[in-house]
Amino acid sequence: MKQEAKVGQNPKGVDLCRREMLIGAGALMAGAALSQLSMVVPAVAAKTAGGGEVWPWPYEKIDPARAGETAYQAWYEVFCSQAVTLGLFQQLRETVGEPWTSFPIGSLRFGMGGMLGWGLTCGAPVASALVIGLVTPGETATPMVRELLQWYAETPLPVYAATNPRFSGEIPRTTAQNPLCHQSVGRWMKAADRPFGSDERRHRCASVTASVAYRTAELLNDWKDGKYVAPKSVWDGAAAMGLPSQQNCMSCHGDSVPTPPRGI
Amino acid sequence: MKQEAKVGQNPKGVDLCRREMLIGAGALMAGAALSQLSMVVPAVAAKTAGGGEVWPWPYEKIDPARAGETAYQAWYEVFCSQAVTLGLFQQLRETVGEPWTSFPIGSLRFGMGGMLGWGLTCGAPVASALVIGLVTPGETATPMVRELLQWYAETPLPVYAATNPRFSGEIPRTTAQNPLCHQSVGRWMKAADRPFGSDERRHRCASVTASVAYRTAELLNDWKDGKYVAPKSVWDGAAAMGLPSQQNCMSCHGDSVPTPPRGI
Repeated sequence: MKQEAKVGQNPKGVDLCRREMLIGAGALMAGAALSQLSMVVPAVAAKTAGGGEVWPWPYEKIDPARAGETAYQAWYEVFCSQAVTLGLFQQLRETVGEPWTSFPIGSLRFGMGGMLGWGLTCGAPVASALVIGLVTPGETATPMVRELLQWYAETPLPVYAATNPRFSGEIPRTTAQNPLCHQSVGRWMKAADRPFGSDERRHRCASVTASVAYRTAELLNDWKDGKYVAPKSVWDGAAAMGLPSQQNCMSCHGDSVPTPPRGI
Repeated sequence: MKQEAKVGQNPKGVDLCRREMLIGAGALMAGAALSQLSMVVPAVAAKTAGGGEVWPWPYEKIDPARAGETAYQAWYEVFCSQAVTLGLFQQLRETVGEPWTSFPIGSLRFGMGGMLGWGLTCGAPVASALVIGLVTPGETATPMVRELLQWYAETPLPVYAATNPRFSGEIPRTTAQNPLCHQSVGRWMKAADRPFGSDERRHRCASVTASVAYRTAELLNDWKDGKYVAPKSVWDGAAAMGLPSQQNCMSCHGDSVPTPPRGI
């Protein structure tokens, strides 16, 4: 399946300025040279699944609300990436068993704080991407993970409200604009005017973690029911911008967006 | 183990300007409020390893050069995150067997292009972090992954030279300054003046992937020999900057680096 960003077809909630659309248009005209990230994957799937690999891991539909609440509560002990993993694994361990039971959730700890404090990709969608990759081999995982990332970037988060919240006040919802921990947390901190160590920020990240677990469960349940339809337009930075990129160049680069070299 | 960045102790090759050091100093004075990402983890390890989990996964020392060459060649089929995983798994499947044999490497596909084209964290260190997390439970993985990320950010890459390269010319080595695919690839493309679809760029990313597999094997071998010593100073963005962050604020923010809210 070829996934390409439709330039000018503005993903909901993400601003593509004219400068960015022009870059995108140039990249799309470059065409086949940029197809690395859009290539067909069944051959890869067949090769890596050989030699004793178990793939896909068996999946039974899970309750998104229970996955969300488990992830919310777990955040306070293990933070985002492990909490999402536990939220999604818990019911599969009960209904399916192996390989979900023996896989060590603690191995995902590295995702917290955008790789242990670097503010890189938020650990919640990283953990979800691994689970989606385990459940849906080959082509399916790619559009589903891209859809999840775009949802994370565009949605005022958190959307999940804990049944047993550990902070009782109201907190703002903010749009991260991309899946980076630094920007996701930073934009929220600015809107809330609360520091990183505050109860509000902790409740916010726990609730975002729960939101990601909930949304991932919804996507996987749709897939299990045969109802999952890959969106027609998902972000493919390499195809749109000439190298792997977010949509919002100018939020970092300002008016001086570099132009990558073109051609083969 | 408490890991904190030593402000003013400039990590090799990473420029901390005065503005950034001042931010860091302020954050460190905030002290305990920012300790989330530095907390002690044995309690977490004990909890998540219960209930039938297999952790750590058995490890035998592997040949870094073979891991690197396998990763280099695999990149041309499966790209960075799966290639690193295969490079590290291959010998463990031969010498150890399970659980390495049955885990599906294709589930890591999401890492390529910094999460499927978004230019987020490079998929090579994401895959390495998972393997380090599987092999070394609890505290050890945290400083080791942080050390790997810092090495990735500071080292002119690639350092691995393939035994059977698929491109025969010389290519430049560039310092990514952080582990983001967008910046790692972008800085190299600028230095090389070659586009994303070029043979040189593909050879470069394959060689970076191999370099990461090689370095990860070295770290894990040292750990297996009981010789691994966690560096005294590794980056902890939350402690240094007041929220999960890279070291080089101004490379994105210019002269207008936002100041996060302080206090509890």
